[in-house]
Amino acid sequence: MTPPSDDASSGRGTGAYAGPAKRATILDVAAAAGVSRQTVTRAMNAMPGIRRETRQRVQDVARELGYTPSRFAKGLVQGARTSVGLSIPDLTNPYYPAFASSVVELATQRGWHVVMDDYGHGGATGAESVEHLAPQVDAVIGYLGGATDEAQAVLGRRPLVVLDQPAGSASGRISFDYGHAAQAALGHLQARGCRHLAYIDRADSEAGRATVAPGHRGERGHASGSAQEVVTARGQAFARSAAAAGVVLAVSVSPESAADARQVTRRLLEEHPRTDGIVVFNDLMAAGALKALAESGRAVPADCAVIGMDGIPLGELLTPELTTLALDLREVGRAAVELLDGLLTGSIEPGGPGSELVLRHRLVLRQSA
Amino acid sequence: MTPPSDDASSGRGTGAYAGPAKRATILDVAAAAGVSRQTVTRAMNAMPGIRRETRQRVQDVARELGYTPSRFAKGLVQGARTSVGLSIPDLTNPYYPAFASSVVELATQRGWHVVMDDYGHGGATGAESVEHLAPQVDAVIGYLGGATDEAQAVLGRRPLVVLDQPAGSASGRISFDYGHAAQAALGHLQARGCRHLAYIDRADSEAGRATVAPGHRGERGHASGSAQEVVTARGQAFARSAAAAGVVLAVSVSPESAADARQVTRRLLEEHPRTDGIVVFNDLMAAGALKALAESGRAVPADCAVIGMDGIPLGELLTPELTTLALDLREVGRAAVELLDGLLTGSIEPGGPGSELVLRHRLVLRQSA
Repeated sequence: MTPPSDDASSGRGTGAYAGPAKRATILDVAAAAGVSRQTVTRAMNAMPGIRRETRQRVQDVARELGYTPSRFAKGLVQGARTSVGLSIPDLTNPYYPAFASSVVELATQRGWHVVMDDYGHGGATGAESVEHLAPQVDAVIGYLGGATDEAQAVLGRRPLVVLDQPAGSASGRISFDYGHAAQAALGHLQARGCRHLAYIDRADSEAGRATVAPGHRGERGHASGSAQEVVTARGQAFARSAAAAGVVLAVSVSPESAADARQVTRRLLEEHPRTDGIVVFNDLMAAGALKALAESGRAVPADCAVIGMDGIPLGELLTPELTTLALDLREVGRAAVELLDGLLTGSIEPGGPGSELVLRHRLVLRQSA
Repeated sequence: MTPPSDDASSGRGTGAYAGPAKRATILDVAAAAGVSRQTVTRAMNAMPGIRRETRQRVQDVARELGYTPSRFAKGLVQGARTSVGLSIPDLTNPYYPAFASSVVELATQRGWHVVMDDYGHGGATGAESVEHLAPQVDAVIGYLGGATDEAQAVLGRRPLVVLDQPAGSASGRISFDYGHAAQAALGHLQARGCRHLAYIDRADSEAGRATVAPGHRGERGHASGSAQEVVTARGQAFARSAAAAGVVLAVSVSPESAADARQVTRRLLEEHPRTDGIVVFNDLMAAGALKALAESGRAVPADCAVIGMDGIPLGELLTPELTTLALDLREVGRAAVELLDGLLTGSIEPGGPGSELVLRHRLVLRQSA
């Protein structure tokens, strides 16, 4: 659990620590081999995206100069492994164990050890989670909510990779293109002939489970007192996308559980009985929406189509099987792990080029829409 | 993350460490108050099962003697919290995140910090998981497979609470009464009038996904070449229970996933088309069995009833909703956390009375049986 040190002499690897003097750095190897720093990382880690001859040349140069990437050196010299903290807010939402499993699998393949913190119990924050993990880890990957700056301050120069958090000063960041997702879903529903669309957003966790306050969105054509404002970044993307396409979107807000979403969908169908297409904040809540539609005697998708979001395995077990805006969770895990690797080896500068990755959802068509 | 020390002078708390000399121990308080060691623990931790006057008397005596339970002392003196490692083999099986979430919630309520290790990737064992966690934790709770002795050796005198592992030398143990579960499920199916019963067991993880070898169970009345031997403790309980009741049970074995169980169920229905009642190793695999039954045109439960096992939230989202042998996951988490607390405070001796808890499943009737 010592910090990485291979980038010491460059004097600009803000994500790395000072190492032994005179040791060959990644920059020495890059200069001698006539390649970029990133290419050295790829070559030393047998990653794709590099020609075989280039990999061989870089590895030869590295051997000549006595350069060893820090995590190999650590393993050889100290028997220690890179230890990565993984902060997730709620294991009961099946997205998070699926994401975590992907990160752990890919990190394990690199010889890293992952310790996980399921921090959402008892009102703890993402920053507190990082504080707990900090004494034991070389870096953190996490869904931290809004606590990015505080968490990075706790870690100092150790890398922090945050997901789904566009603001703040994390050394690395994985974001999602919700505008693209919204267009794909709304476009698909319109192409199916759906004319009365609804979006069920997740209630802000701050607002608590019992306080789903109605808002007013008269300008979107819903003068009903129960029309609500979108709350999340996903919801905002759907509202913007609908407005841009001239589509009226009935918005409901539900706490993040299948049972709550079932109730909210029931009310939505009472107030907007002609609803024929629903997009739901995530797959777990979409499972509740499917239950409410079945209860109301509506056939899915014939009477009302449903699209979820996340792409977790649950969707395939539902009846009808859930059409969803899917993230490739292996891809998300891989992006987080590769970004962290770049930050640890110094091939990516914290906050610099390549430190933010934007991933897109793919509309996976199953039975529900 | 220093070890607990309140039981030092007793000289027999093998789960506790030597603490500072002359400090009042839990036994001093118990003797002075005229109560058992366990009652002192209950009183000091405001746990139920103790009269108010007794609690007050014990707390008064403790104050006089200057006794403080170790984890409070640690918090006061060092600002450190008890750190508990949680080893689980596979986050993609929804049982484990549900169990882990329960443990984390209840441990957090006690002021403990939990770090989790999802160890099943890349062929790692439960013992390796405990090795990774050991440098950072005061104790471990885990599903370790058969690695109990090795894991306890790694932890030395620090407590280890294992689940679903009847053999080995762990300081604490939570077991499940599968005989009770099997009787409840088979009895319910027989009472429904099911006459052609099947049990789908989980393939041994050692056997790998591709090697579900057929066995021969001619003595149970299945001469077919595809009849198989049960593999797991659950499966053995079902086989014993069926034999005792004179019930013929067709056994199939499936790798632990919904998709695999769907395939195996499809074959089962081809080879035993009159099957009218199926019990499945767990809820996740039962979800696959429901899919196979729907594909085959069978109505559940009218043509064939299905019972799962575990009681995870997934079961309620399926169609039809899954009847299951449910563990109360909050109860399992509470049992693990309270047992560990007793081992940490010294109110329970490792391997002694009260160090093994046996929990029972409850048959939760929903729609599928």
